[in-house]
Amino acid sequence: MEIKIIENVLKLNDEVAQQNRHQLREAGVTCINLIGSPGSGKTALLERTLEMLGSDLAVGVLAGDMATTRDANRLAAFTPHVVQINVGKSCHLDANQVRQGMNSLDLTALDLLIIENVGNLICPVGFDLGQDVKVGMFSATEGDDKPAKHPYLVLEAGLLLLNKIDLLPHVPFDVTRFREDVGSIREGIPLIELSAVTGDGLDVWCTWLRRLCNERPSTDKQPCCEPGAVL
Amino acid sequence: MEIKIIENVLKLNDEVAQQNRHQLREAGVTCINLIGSPGSGKTALLERTLEMLGSDLAVGVLAGDMATTRDANRLAAFTPHVVQINVGKSCHLDANQVRQGMNSLDLTALDLLIIENVGNLICPVGFDLGQDVKVGMFSATEGDDKPAKHPYLVLEAGLLLLNKIDLLPHVPFDVTRFREDVGSIREGIPLIELSAVTGDGLDVWCTWLRRLCNERPSTDKQPCCEPGAVL
Repeated sequence: MEIKIIENVLKLNDEVAQQNRHQLREAGVTCINLIGSPGSGKTALLERTLEMLGSDLAVGVLAGDMATTRDANRLAAFTPHVVQINVGKSCHLDANQVRQGMNSLDLTALDLLIIENVGNLICPVGFDLGQDVKVGMFSATEGDDKPAKHPYLVLEAGLLLLNKIDLLPHVPFDVTRFREDVGSIREGIPLIELSAVTGDGLDVWCTWLRRLCNERPSTDKQPCCEPGAVL
Repeated sequence: MEIKIIENVLKLNDEVAQQNRHQLREAGVTCINLIGSPGSGKTALLERTLEMLGSDLAVGVLAGDMATTRDANRLAAFTPHVVQINVGKSCHLDANQVRQGMNSLDLTALDLLIIENVGNLICPVGFDLGQDVKVGMFSATEGDDKPAKHPYLVLEAGLLLLNKIDLLPHVPFDVTRFREDVGSIREGIPLIELSAVTGDGLDVWCTWLRRLCNERPSTDKQPCCEPGAVL
């Protein structure tokens, strides 16, 4: 009984996610689902990203958090298309919450929708939201062992980011070990090393986003989670 | 139906947690449940803690992670009483996993059992494991907004730690704002600011642990999660 109910919850989520995906593609909007730990720098990265993309792409953001509107307030300085979703005691965004957030945005005005998931390396991984690509975010201050300890994110993501590389001189972090662990879990997955503070690597990230928008899949049958499909 | 099943799962967990608490107190073992983000420095803190406590207290550790035995391997250099619990795709430890871990330890040889929960600021908060106190851990590299975004941890914990204060000169972090947010959620909760790398603040933390072990509650009716009960 319990397993059946959990299956039903996931099935319902997947159905709504597929509706989200269809609606986004009908509107010509590419969508990424950004997943990382609390404090990995997701909002800081989005501030710099919105600044760098400028008028190249019209970007909307759905910002998930347990509480507060702090992320949306920060991002509202860079785009008018931002919605905060407070999940209370829940540990991830679900497709229905994203649907409600989408309903608050004018999708016809957007090229790209970025879903900033709740800060959590585990629970968000299993919930399809209707994105084209899941982007997994680590940071140098979390230690080099995080991909090995969170293999499911590495397996599900279409791109990995390593943020806060400006702090590498100040923390114990073996970049070679980090890259080897990533490669041993999922050979060939693209990895961009960057710093939202110094701006290092942000050009590569913004180029990746522009390409993703230009090469947006034309059907809603399959999310392009395979690196080969989006790079 | 769904709500009832979730209630039953939590009720069963709480029953096993209460058995764990009873068994630990019968054996004279104080127990803390350490909760923090991935990469907040839980294992690094425990390495230094075990080193500093030395022969003062006999400490056992149950280390939770999705995958790998890296944490237990690191801690085994400092104590023979360490068990790794891999939770797979789960996002927190539950009382039954802790029970199994306890069964692998000789409780009569221990003064203190530290449960290092799975790296996650959200899901572990709601699951009683049988601990005397939940300890919530933040770190300076995660940003000063984390208590405000994760109020349930602040409300449930008997002590908060702010780790990585050695990195404060290199990151945007307003210590005053952090303290004010904590105080506005839960006035009077004790907070220890420390660095597992430089050792700053570790003496205060170890003194807190020694006092907790000395003042261990003698009944198993109530976990001492209130700060007044343990300090």
